[in-house]
Amino acid sequence: MHGKKHSVAVVGLGSMGMGAARSCIRSGLETYGIDINSKALKVLSEAGARGVSSSGDEFSREVDSVLLLVVSAKQVRQVLFENALAEKVRPGTAIMVSATISAQDAIDINSHLAEKDLIMLDAPVSGGSAKANIGEMTVMAAGSDEAFTKLQPVLDAVAAKVYRVGSEIGMGATVKIIHQMLAGVHIAAGAEAMAMAAKANIPLDLIYEVVTNAAGNSWMFENRMKHVLDGDYTPQSMVDIFVKDLGLVTDTAQSLNFPLYLASTAYQMFTAASNAGHGMEDDSAVIKIFQGVELPKKKGD
Amino acid sequence: MHGKKHSVAVVGLGSMGMGAARSCIRSGLETYGIDINSKALKVLSEAGARGVSSSGDEFSREVDSVLLLVVSAKQVRQVLFENALAEKVRPGTAIMVSATISAQDAIDINSHLAEKDLIMLDAPVSGGSAKANIGEMTVMAAGSDEAFTKLQPVLDAVAAKVYRVGSEIGMGATVKIIHQMLAGVHIAAGAEAMAMAAKANIPLDLIYEVVTNAAGNSWMFENRMKHVLDGDYTPQSMVDIFVKDLGLVTDTAQSLNFPLYLASTAYQMFTAASNAGHGMEDDSAVIKIFQGVELPKKKGD
Repeated sequence: MHGKKHSVAVVGLGSMGMGAARSCIRSGLETYGIDINSKALKVLSEAGARGVSSSGDEFSREVDSVLLLVVSAKQVRQVLFENALAEKVRPGTAIMVSATISAQDAIDINSHLAEKDLIMLDAPVSGGSAKANIGEMTVMAAGSDEAFTKLQPVLDAVAAKVYRVGSEIGMGATVKIIHQMLAGVHIAAGAEAMAMAAKANIPLDLIYEVVTNAAGNSWMFENRMKHVLDGDYTPQSMVDIFVKDLGLVTDTAQSLNFPLYLASTAYQMFTAASNAGHGMEDDSAVIKIFQGVELPKKKGD
Repeated sequence: MHGKKHSVAVVGLGSMGMGAARSCIRSGLETYGIDINSKALKVLSEAGARGVSSSGDEFSREVDSVLLLVVSAKQVRQVLFENALAEKVRPGTAIMVSATISAQDAIDINSHLAEKDLIMLDAPVSGGSAKANIGEMTVMAAGSDEAFTKLQPVLDAVAAKVYRVGSEIGMGATVKIIHQMLAGVHIAAGAEAMAMAAKANIPLDLIYEVVTNAAGNSWMFENRMKHVLDGDYTPQSMVDIFVKDLGLVTDTAQSLNFPLYLASTAYQMFTAASNAGHGMEDDSAVIKIFQGVELPKKKGD
C-alpha cells in the first residue's frame, strides 16, 4: 500500500454520509460518492471527490473500501445485492456497514458478503451530522482484525472515537441498538414527566430547571424537553426514527430471548405518536400522546 | 424578631436531618433536635444543639419553626398528630414538611395543621446526606408567602437552592415526585440496557463507556450502573426506596387522572426486585430481576 492512497466509496450522501465523505477527502483519501440524488453527487464532486455516480459502476473496481451510510438494512441490501455493488468491487474489499440495523441483519448481510470474499465491519455510528462534518463521529465497530486494519484509514478520517466492540459481526449493531434503547426510553420518560407536570399545573420551565440540576436528569431530557418548553417540534430527529430504532431493539431482544419492560413500552408510545400523525415531527412530540394537558405553544403561533 | 435568634426544632435525625440540624447550628440558629434514637440526640447535643429530646415536650413552645426530615407521610402524621407535636407548639409556628410524600398527603396534613393555626411549607428536599451536611440541600417548596418568610432563616441555613414551586400545598410534593419518577425510570432503564448487553455478550464496561459518552446517558445510568460494573450492591439508596417513591408517583398520577406508561412499568420492576429479596440492596439491584444473564461479581467475592 505504500505510496498508493487508500480509496473509499461512500454510499449514501445524506447529512451523515456527506459529512463522512468530506472528512475522507480532507484526510487525503481518494474518495468516491454514490447516491441516487444527483444534487448531492454534484456537491461532493465540487468538494473534491475523485468520482461520483448513481451506481458506482465507473469506479467500483478501483476502491479499497466501501462506507455505507444509508438508513436501513433494506437500503444496505438494495445497494449491495439488488444493485449488486457487492459483485462489482474486487474480492477482498472492506465494507463498513454504518446503518443502524439489527444484529440479525448484520449477520445475514455479512454471510452474503463473505460468499463474495468481501470483508465486513459492523460499524454503526453516532454523533449527528455536525460530528460527521468534522470527521468526529463515534463508531461502535465489530469485525475481524483484517476488517479493522483495511478500514483504518477510513476510521481515522471519519471518527474521533472508535469503540472496538469485538470480533463477532452483530456486536456493533447490538451496542448501537442498546444505546438507542436508552435514548428512546429517556425521551419518552421525559415526555411522561413533563406531561404529568402540566397536568398538575406545575410550571414546565420550573420542572425543567429542577430536573436538569438534579439526579433525575438525562442527556435526552435536557436536549429534547427544551423543544417541549419552546413548543417547537421542528424535527431534528423524528418520532418515526424511534419507531424504527425501538423496532430494532424489539427484534434484537427477540433474537436474544430477552424480556423488554421499558423499551417495549417506549416503543408503543412512539408508535402511538406516529399513528396520531406526529411521525415526521421532532421525537419530543411523543409527548402529544398525553391528552388533556396544555403544552407550551411556539412563540408567534 | 430583631435581636432574637430564630429557633428551630429538627425532627428526624437520620443522615439528612442530622446534616440539616448541624447546618442550622452552624448558621447560628437556636437549634433543637427530636428523635427516638438517643444516640443521635447525644451527637446533636455535642454538636451544639440548644436542646434535644425524644418528644420535644421540653422546648416545643419555644420554637419559631419545625423542620420535619422523617421518611414517610406516616411518620409525619405520627410526629405531628399521634405524638401531638402540633398541639405543643405555639399557634403561628411554621412547619416545614420535607419528607417525600404524595401531594394528597401534603394537602391532608396541611388541613390538619391549619386547624391548629400552624403554617405549613410543603418542602421536599434532595441532594443526599453529603449536601445536607454542608447546608446545601436543594429544596422544592410550595406554600404561602408567610410560610416562606417565617422559614427563611431555616431555608438559608440548610439549602443551596430553593425552588419556589408555587403557593398551593402539594405542588412541592408533586415536583419531588416527578423528579423521583425520572430517577426511578432511569435506573430501571439502565438495568434493562446493561442486562440486555450481558445477554448479548457485550462487555459491560464497554457499553458503560459508550453510553456515558453519548446521548443515551443519564445521571442515574452513570452513577448507578457503576455499581453493577463493580458487582457492589451495598446500598447507597435502596430498592425499597423506589418501591415507596414510585408508589407515590402512582398515587399522585391517580389523583391527577394521569396515565403512567413508563413509571408504572419501572414500579413493577422495583417491586419484583424487592419481592425477590433485594429490597435492602442498592437500587441498582433492580437488574437482578433479569434472569439468565451473568453479571459482574464483586472483587474478592
